[in-house]
Amino acid sequence: MTPLTLEQLQQYDQQDLLAHKRAEFTLPEQSIYFDGNSLGAMPSCALQRAKDVLERQWSQDLIQSWNSNQWIDLPFKVGEQIGRLIGAGSGQVICCDSTSVNLFKVLSCALLMQPKRTVVLTQQGNFPTDLYMVQGLTRLLGESRCQLVEVPEQGLEQALTSDVAVLMLTQVDFRSGRLLDIQRLTQIAHEQGVLVIVDLAHSAGALPVELDTWQVDFAVGCGYKYLNGGPGAPAFLYAAKRHHAQIHQPLSGWMGHKAPFSFSPQYVKSDGIEQFLTGTPAVISMSVLDAALQVFSDVSMQQIREKSLGLTRCFHQLVQQQAALAELSLITPLKPEERGSQLAYQHPAAYALCQALIKRGVIADFRAPDILRLGFTPLYLRYVDLWQAVEILSDIVVSKEYLKPEYAIRQKVT
Amino acid sequence: MTPLTLEQLQQYDQQDLLAHKRAEFTLPEQSIYFDGNSLGAMPSCALQRAKDVLERQWSQDLIQSWNSNQWIDLPFKVGEQIGRLIGAGSGQVICCDSTSVNLFKVLSCALLMQPKRTVVLTQQGNFPTDLYMVQGLTRLLGESRCQLVEVPEQGLEQALTSDVAVLMLTQVDFRSGRLLDIQRLTQIAHEQGVLVIVDLAHSAGALPVELDTWQVDFAVGCGYKYLNGGPGAPAFLYAAKRHHAQIHQPLSGWMGHKAPFSFSPQYVKSDGIEQFLTGTPAVISMSVLDAALQVFSDVSMQQIREKSLGLTRCFHQLVQQQAALAELSLITPLKPEERGSQLAYQHPAAYALCQALIKRGVIADFRAPDILRLGFTPLYLRYVDLWQAVEILSDIVVSKEYLKPEYAIRQKVT
Repeated sequence: MTPLTLEQLQQYDQQDLLAHKRAEFTLPEQSIYFDGNSLGAMPSCALQRAKDVLERQWSQDLIQSWNSNQWIDLPFKVGEQIGRLIGAGSGQVICCDSTSVNLFKVLSCALLMQPKRTVVLTQQGNFPTDLYMVQGLTRLLGESRCQLVEVPEQGLEQALTSDVAVLMLTQVDFRSGRLLDIQRLTQIAHEQGVLVIVDLAHSAGALPVELDTWQVDFAVGCGYKYLNGGPGAPAFLYAAKRHHAQIHQPLSGWMGHKAPFSFSPQYVKSDGIEQFLTGTPAVISMSVLDAALQVFSDVSMQQIREKSLGLTRCFHQLVQQQAALAELSLITPLKPEERGSQLAYQHPAAYALCQALIKRGVIADFRAPDILRLGFTPLYLRYVDLWQAVEILSDIVVSKEYLKPEYAIRQKVT
Repeated sequence: MTPLTLEQLQQYDQQDLLAHKRAEFTLPEQSIYFDGNSLGAMPSCALQRAKDVLERQWSQDLIQSWNSNQWIDLPFKVGEQIGRLIGAGSGQVICCDSTSVNLFKVLSCALLMQPKRTVVLTQQGNFPTDLYMVQGLTRLLGESRCQLVEVPEQGLEQALTSDVAVLMLTQVDFRSGRLLDIQRLTQIAHEQGVLVIVDLAHSAGALPVELDTWQVDFAVGCGYKYLNGGPGAPAFLYAAKRHHAQIHQPLSGWMGHKAPFSFSPQYVKSDGIEQFLTGTPAVISMSVLDAALQVFSDVSMQQIREKSLGLTRCFHQLVQQQAALAELSLITPLKPEERGSQLAYQHPAAYALCQALIKRGVIADFRAPDILRLGFTPLYLRYVDLWQAVEILSDIVVSKEYLKPEYAIRQKVT
């Protein structure tokens, strides 16, 4: 393979149809940011919106803002915007709570829909909070009604037996970056009468998702990663319209009531996707997410995917070109259809490498026990950034800088 | 009784030990705000904090803020601040999620602790979302494990039979403003082996609460009413330390794990109050609440309570002095020990009166079917405001302004 040069990367940037999007973000000047899969960077419009929500909507319009500034419509409005990015037709996505809480809602619905089945089947190594939420439900309902079964990814199909109520999948693995074929798995699950819940934490805003086409039953996902909604931004929940009439989610708070302001003592669920609302939404955080989503208004998920694949391909090629980096072992699949928008390298000193990179302004992250993880966000990452990052990484290894004692001390990691 | 004069009210303001607090809020100039029990006004420091969280912490420090800007400590730190306002010793209050979601957590805990008892007993007319959350739990667990029983307040004591697992009370009624004697009810409940959950939505920040002294088991409450945390601010949850070791809340997300960043597949709950955390906290909204709580740092709840009782007493006296307002019928108890920080008047045209008041800059609210509700927030309401508000209300009645067709149309009410 012809070695990749800085000039070639500069040329990619010049040809990049998404290059102009970077200017819509406020980024730290001296950093290269590979952690948009943990916390997306700040779109400048988000700051403007936050100021308006506090300075005008809250402080001046006060309680009337629920109507005059449409706070009451935010969960639905933000849900609609996210829906467009994940292939969901109108009225099937709502913004609320956290991913974990939303997962509890859809898990409960799915189990209640399948009273004779008890197993929640998932892939081994799924994101811990997904596993924990099932474990919590088991503790509440007992093992006779909810059991978590984890199997290696290649064994999922075989494990879809008649006692499986739900197949719970995360589309892109948070460690390895492996991308599952949700359409295929959904079809197989449905053939066995199994409902499908997909966690889109590492896919929404990163790659094309087609929930309606794939006939997924329920999905949840995160507002603060590739959607750039700000730290701890509210999450989202998708429920296919065909299920809306018969489902009952147990976190039935007043915002999910058909007529919340009638203050009636009996819960009557809303007909639509609003039935998944629980308490009063975090308006400030949700408004920031609402504004942040504007950066997606003039780009397609296909464009984002193409650049994402270009960035990860080039980065790995640059790593391979550096003899010093031979010890970095890629655990992300090389086939484009099998990888998300991140690269994960195993290395015995991954923690120290990550700390040394951060010290030099290359913000990557570490996942225990030995993974250096880099997220690639096509809206604000440039091809030339990859060159610089790999140069720094190589220098850290060659100079043995990462062996400094300050990088060996394991501190609280996020 | 000697009539209350404007001069007398001006004198009260001059003597008011809390008078200086008003300057710490950004308030609309032309309004008198009686809706701090729905959405507290904005402390100016909240805006400064929001700007810092976006401009510096998020946009510049990005993911590292979890440690460098202590985002990870926010739920506990904010919980501690709220704890001081509700008589909770350290390590028993955490800030997270919504009041409804938190109620689900403590309800589940309490039911799991009392496997042979099934009833959740509550006062008739309790805030709907509290009822709805129990109804949701019943739907999930079945009536054999969870049953909601509502009885009139005066019948609570008698209804504490051996099948009652939990007595779920709201300290201050959202409609009438009636204040319950939680200490007494808790003692009686405990004598019957019943656990007590208290909803502090209309009491935290409004009046002295002594959870530890009263030996309440669990409590939940709201960040956006008297705590002034901003629209949809995160809520809080109290769990008495004596229960921490044996309880298991089912919304067991990764932030409640003993070691969240070990990413282990098995949930092991945190030892302390952090076990009630679920997903990633809404950092922007929670930071705003954190800042807003600073306004309580140099005042005591006793001072707040004294002014609150003074404000409600004076307001009602002014209403009584106006012959035109004879049709307003107070449903809030007159005894100080039986009322919270609000007044509620029944009137056949309550909705129109409320709309006409708002039009004239007096922000009150309406609760179906016929209640005009006014919240009194001692940190930013002046005695002279009461005079002006009652003058306007009287004028609206005398002039029959409230009969204008524009006020008769019932629109979406918040």
